[in-house]
Amino acid sequence: MNAAIRAAVRQADALGMDVYGVYRGYQGLVEQDWRPLTSRHCANILQRGGTILNTARCDAWRLPAVRAKAAQDLKDAGVDALVVIGGDGSFTGAEILNREHGIPCAGIPGTIDNDLPGTDRTLGFDTALNTAVQAIDRIRDTASAHERLFLVEVMGRSSGMIAVNTAIACGAEAVLYPEAEEHGYQALVTQLRAGWERGKRSSIVVVAEGDASGGAYKISELLRKDHNLDMRVVVLGHIQRGGSPTAIDRIWGSRWGAEAVKRLAAGETSFYLGSENGELVSRPLARIHDPKPNPPKELAILAGVLAR
Amino acid sequence: MNAAIRAAVRQADALGMDVYGVYRGYQGLVEQDWRPLTSRHCANILQRGGTILNTARCDAWRLPAVRAKAAQDLKDAGVDALVVIGGDGSFTGAEILNREHGIPCAGIPGTIDNDLPGTDRTLGFDTALNTAVQAIDRIRDTASAHERLFLVEVMGRSSGMIAVNTAIACGAEAVLYPEAEEHGYQALVTQLRAGWERGKRSSIVVVAEGDASGGAYKISELLRKDHNLDMRVVVLGHIQRGGSPTAIDRIWGSRWGAEAVKRLAAGETSFYLGSENGELVSRPLARIHDPKPNPPKELAILAGVLAR
Amino acid sequence: MNAAIRAAVRQADALGMDVYGVYRGYQGLVEQDWRPLTSRHCANILQRGGTILNTARCDAWRLPAVRAKAAQDLKDAGVDALVVIGGDGSFTGAEILNREHGIPCAGIPGTIDNDLPGTDRTLGFDTALNTAVQAIDRIRDTASAHERLFLVEVMGRSSGMIAVNTAIACGAEAVLYPEAEEHGYQALVTQLRAGWERGKRSSIVVVAEGDASGGAYKISELLRKDHNLDMRVVVLGHIQRGGSPTAIDRIWGSRWGAEAVKRLAAGETSFYLGSENGELVSRPLARIHDPKPNPPKELAILAGVLAR
Amino acid sequence: MNAAIRAAVRQADALGMDVYGVYRGYQGLVEQDWRPLTSRHCANILQRGGTILNTARCDAWRLPAVRAKAAQDLKDAGVDALVVIGGDGSFTGAEILNREHGIPCAGIPGTIDNDLPGTDRTLGFDTALNTAVQAIDRIRDTASAHERLFLVEVMGRSSGMIAVNTAIACGAEAVLYPEAEEHGYQALVTQLRAGWERGKRSSIVVVAEGDASGGAYKISELLRKDHNLDMRVVVLGHIQRGGSPTAIDRIWGSRWGAEAVKRLAAGETSFYLGSENGELVSRPLARIHDPKPNPPKELAILAGVLAR
Repeated sequence: MNAAIRAAVRQADALGMDVYGVYRGYQGLVEQDWRPLTSRHCANILQRGGTILNTARCDAWRLPAVRAKAAQDLKDAGVDALVVIGGDGSFTGAEILNREHGIPCAGIPGTIDNDLPGTDRTLGFDTALNTAVQAIDRIRDTASAHERLFLVEVMGRSSGMIAVNTAIACGAEAVLYPEAEEHGYQALVTQLRAGWERGKRSSIVVVAEGDASGGAYKISELLRKDHNLDMRVVVLGHIQRGGSPTAIDRIWGSRWGAEAVKRLAAGETSFYLGSENGELVSRPLARIHDPKPNPPKELAILAGVLAR
Repeated sequence: MNAAIRAAVRQADALGMDVYGVYRGYQGLVEQDWRPLTSRHCANILQRGGTILNTARCDAWRLPAVRAKAAQDLKDAGVDALVVIGGDGSFTGAEILNREHGIPCAGIPGTIDNDLPGTDRTLGFDTALNTAVQAIDRIRDTASAHERLFLVEVMGRSSGMIAVNTAIACGAEAVLYPEAEEHGYQALVTQLRAGWERGKRSSIVVVAEGDASGGAYKISELLRKDHNLDMRVVVLGHIQRGGSPTAIDRIWGSRWGAEAVKRLAAGETSFYLGSENGELVSRPLARIHDPKPNPPKELAILAGVLAR
Repeated sequence: MNAAIRAAVRQADALGMDVYGVYRGYQGLVEQDWRPLTSRHCANILQRGGTILNTARCDAWRLPAVRAKAAQDLKDAGVDALVVIGGDGSFTGAEILNREHGIPCAGIPGTIDNDLPGTDRTLGFDTALNTAVQAIDRIRDTASAHERLFLVEVMGRSSGMIAVNTAIACGAEAVLYPEAEEHGYQALVTQLRAGWERGKRSSIVVVAEGDASGGAYKISELLRKDHNLDMRVVVLGHIQRGGSPTAIDRIWGSRWGAEAVKRLAAGETSFYLGSENGELVSRPLARIHDPKPNPPKELAILAGVLAR
Repeated sequence: MNAAIRAAVRQADALGMDVYGVYRGYQGLVEQDWRPLTSRHCANILQRGGTILNTARCDAWRLPAVRAKAAQDLKDAGVDALVVIGGDGSFTGAEILNREHGIPCAGIPGTIDNDLPGTDRTLGFDTALNTAVQAIDRIRDTASAHERLFLVEVMGRSSGMIAVNTAIACGAEAVLYPEAEEHGYQALVTQLRAGWERGKRSSIVVVAEGDASGGAYKISELLRKDHNLDMRVVVLGHIQRGGSPTAIDRIWGSRWGAEAVKRLAAGETSFYLGSENGELVSRPLARIHDPKPNPPKELAILAGVLAR
């Protein structure tokens, strides 16, 4: 996210505009926790994980009176427009603020799960994917040396995007994820048995945390009880977040941050940025309510073929 | 490349076909240096840099008699089709072999420079980009601590694709690359001076090895002589190659490897695979002679804006 | 471990001796699962995690008859000596084999926990330490951005060596480990409160899996129930194993592997190698039964001082 | 170095003392460029490369009048003692300042080359070593795939410490370094020929920048001219500096930073810290003029044995 913050600030600077940084998301708007942010403040932040503006939940943002107060504060301070980095919750909040109080709002997709409608890319996804892959590479060393089965749980409560891509990239023997049509657990048992008969002594199965079978610990229990299969469980959890961002995440953060400011300066008022087929695109904020994208099913099938 | 080899072998295995691995490119065809490659040989290679099949130049491939001999050897051995991983030289060699001797050939883009026509992605580019960015992150630590100027030379003899993307991703103050329209050196001097006056005491300039000004050492000399500017030079060179591939490179290597075999099995005869706007596409091998793509000019401009 | 295997094989080669690789530890001795291992087999393994010889538990090794059979097999095959890489279990097995059947045995300390008597260093410890530190660096990004408390469980069932060193290296606010004299949990509560009052909004606490309070999940529950403190839990688990070894681990693996062979060639018969104050040392195998070393208590105290 | 700064500041805080950070070394003393440094300023710096205090050469420090003025400034500001992080130049400067003006001075070894007398460890050495090893791991991928010879130049103008340790850790085929007794170049030629005859098609040779043969480019030229050997050259240069420090460097930085303050508080007046055989030790500053340590010769010999 720091790449997007830096780009927005410096693009604004280039256009002669001043920027405030709002701390801890909408909570910072509610508490007027904002401070001037200059090009100098953004030196040496591009390579850092996390966000210099911090982040927080803000349940109060659901109250119309709270939003009205915040909108008035912004207007009183002479703020012309708002750039919001986040996921569907943040974009919904921005869409309402714009609709109710006319404050121009731009959204930058900043959710790791890569499950926003209207964009095939979100900030942090590539970084999280590579972090997961590197962790599983290490687990593979142990799986091979000890001839063991591993269940690795990755992020994705309602989306298999990280799980499926991770599975391909780390050569997982199978992948279970929320949107899968068939029951993944039965297929998994079949596949593990087939692999065992072909002589595969070590296996890595990637599971999205939101899989229907109930996550890695649950599946491990079932496999032990029903099939006497002993699988180690690793939950990557928060290890997937943070860390110095990959090149792709920095490049798109930079592009989106600069573009958001340019479009606001040009008069656009309620949009979020995205990527469609490699091109930078702009969507109406209201489109955030569209259905979420599914992970490419052919990748999940490919994972199975490549696990031979 | 190992991701593509593994995927091709295992997809072929799934379709009931046998695979030979040819060592050291066309040189291996000339010397009949090939051996059976099974799914088992491809265990634990996905995460490794380089290629298990090695690589080499093969000047002899330009001789029609040499190609005719190799084609006959392949036919004698009952080989039905060839998968070639490489750049324009390799694809040209495959196109001729197919045209002259009718052997079906599939190409997988495997050049780090990402400068092939008809595809916006090649294997190794994302890995090389991230390696360069991580190296420059470290140089940035020194540049900041010592308040120094650095010229960092990255790969790209005729293409600025790596240079421009690296510059954005590592927050470089400027970038010089072969396809730039204006003379980069003069702009560089202007920009370094402006930065110095604004108080910037450390700067990193990314230079593609094929830049018109003549590479990092040459530019450093000019800056010292003409403007008394003392810049340290770092040539990334071979450090950008190799290393465990990124998630994206593994995923596309896997997709292309499997797809090449599926299409050959379905009867396609002279094509190379690529990516257009995020979709996997197939191109006629002859299209390799089209003009090379230019790096997105707006990224180079953006690098300048973000260097404030 | 691969560094030690490579060094042993090549040192033996230099001395004109032949080497067999025994697969899956003592299990491989029991099943005669061994094969010639030449210098060539050891090319390009130095940088790889895990072990090319695999590993396994071998409960049968406790049976005298099984050991007698294995000893006879070794003698029949003309094997003069055995190099064992492992921890106290492996060394005990070697010590008995040597005592009962006279086969010269050398031990190389290969346990991640760094908790063997007579050596201040074991293979894999530095690698595991750096892996844990890098994972916690990423968690720190999230902890800071979200202002959250994290409990991170690291390896160490009976040893706090990894926990204490990790805590210092990642700037943890507190550390709980098995050998601590006072009750860590009470001190933790006091410290978290003091930090909170000084304005610390994010904290990372490192817990060894063998801590008396019962591991990260247990402590998290207690903190929630007793003190209404909400801490996220991350269990690093198998993520700490595997991965390309650090320079130090490769260097000591290489030194020990070569030295073990040289000493066996010179007639030593029952020893394991170690490091004392930076010097390579040799210990009688029987010394493996000595008490385990404690982690330096001053480091745990220092972690507290530095967490201000 | 940031680990040492953080530890010194927080240890001082724990003892009730105030700390100023002096920017750009002695230059900052000369220009009175110092500011209060609190525990809060040291949050989240432990994992960062470089130094938050920056660094610079200061030729003026050689002038007695300049030192006298700086000493008076320090006394006027109520400064009781100085902690200096650096190499022999910095320590010599501190020793003179203490001798001439009685200001208590503590030194912390902060030179990457690990070539200070009286300590077997310096800050940054382990980080630089691992960075070099990872870079050469990548080069190894290319060397293997292309069957090529590489000359890699690492840091070390007068010390082979980095070169020899890197050579072992990356499995280099040979190593050339300043303190070597025999002429490295002749031995190299012999060794490369022997390797070639045994079938080694790829080799990596590590060269310290201060080697008597004149650095990697010079050696490459000689090999081409005298022996028709074509070797690629890679100069790691500034890539070895910077980067997030390894666990060991963070731990020793933390220990030394805290210890320096504790000893100054206890009345020690002219010392530098070090490590002897794993123990933290204190040396008189005057000892910095002792002869530099030599890299362990047996490691260089071992590199040769392991290159079979």
